[in-house]
Amino acid sequence: MTRFHLDPRLSGDTTPVVELPLSLVLLHHDANYPWTILVPRVPGAVEIADLSAAERAVLTEEIVAVGDAVRSLTGCHKLNVAALGNQVPQLHVHVIGRFRDDPAWPGPVWGAAAPKPRSLETRDALIEALRQRLERTE
Amino acid sequence: MTRFHLDPRLSGDTTPVVELPLSLVLLHHDANYPWTILVPRVPGAVEIADLSAAERAVLTEEIVAVGDAVRSLTGCHKLNVAALGNQVPQLHVHVIGRFRDDPAWPGPVWGAAAPKPRSLETRDALIEALRQRLERTE
Repeated sequence: MTRFHLDPRLSGDTTPVVELPLSLVLLHHDANYPWTILVPRVPGAVEIADLSAAERAVLTEEIVAVGDAVRSLTGCHKLNVAALGNQVPQLHVHVIGRFRDDPAWPGPVWGAAAPKPRSLETRDALIEALRQRLERTE
Repeated sequence: MTRFHLDPRLSGDTTPVVELPLSLVLLHHDANYPWTILVPRVPGAVEIADLSAAERAVLTEEIVAVGDAVRSLTGCHKLNVAALGNQVPQLHVHVIGRFRDDPAWPGPVWGAAAPKPRSLETRDALIEALRQRLERTE
């Protein structure tokens, strides 16, 4: 069994938030949206079907927990949950808070608007708030 | 408890394939992609968190079963799985077979290419093949 390594394109676009039992949770650097990414720490997984049924059940509950944290912290109007992987094959699930006045609404976020930078202070505050909520629900 | 009614925008774009224990499975009319949509028959559900944990576990396994059917029937290179719901609030999950030469690759499919019609014969054959595989795995 090979070890789990985070794809460098995922690590380059994000900052780690917390390690849940199955998934590493990342915060995307694009400040247009509260955009998290869950990466199950299962070496070689590309499709959801590459996880065991038990791992899939854990992933689903981690998606819900991260979505709840994003929603309660940001007051977003809708969550977008997606496992695409056309560009980065490593299995990863986007959990994105959407607002009716965000730059991509009502379309999906990918390729919709130029990425907006976030100050280090804002980023660290968001990460700390997400981590506290997610550690509480573990 | 109100009854489940399929949103008319979902029914207008699709043809029903099969009823799984939780979800109604639909085939999208856009022939650019083998594009299925799962709609859990839970009245009022908008977010995945609106389902019970037991329903979420069933939904996850139905997503995997539909993805396996799409992949084995079409030989697609990747699956895209997404619950967005920005335009149609009723909870629905896209399970889309993607090819490295499809008109949206490697981007997401939404808004990428003009919808392509499918002949009734091709549509019915695809629906029948999906139904047979999914009834076998129920």
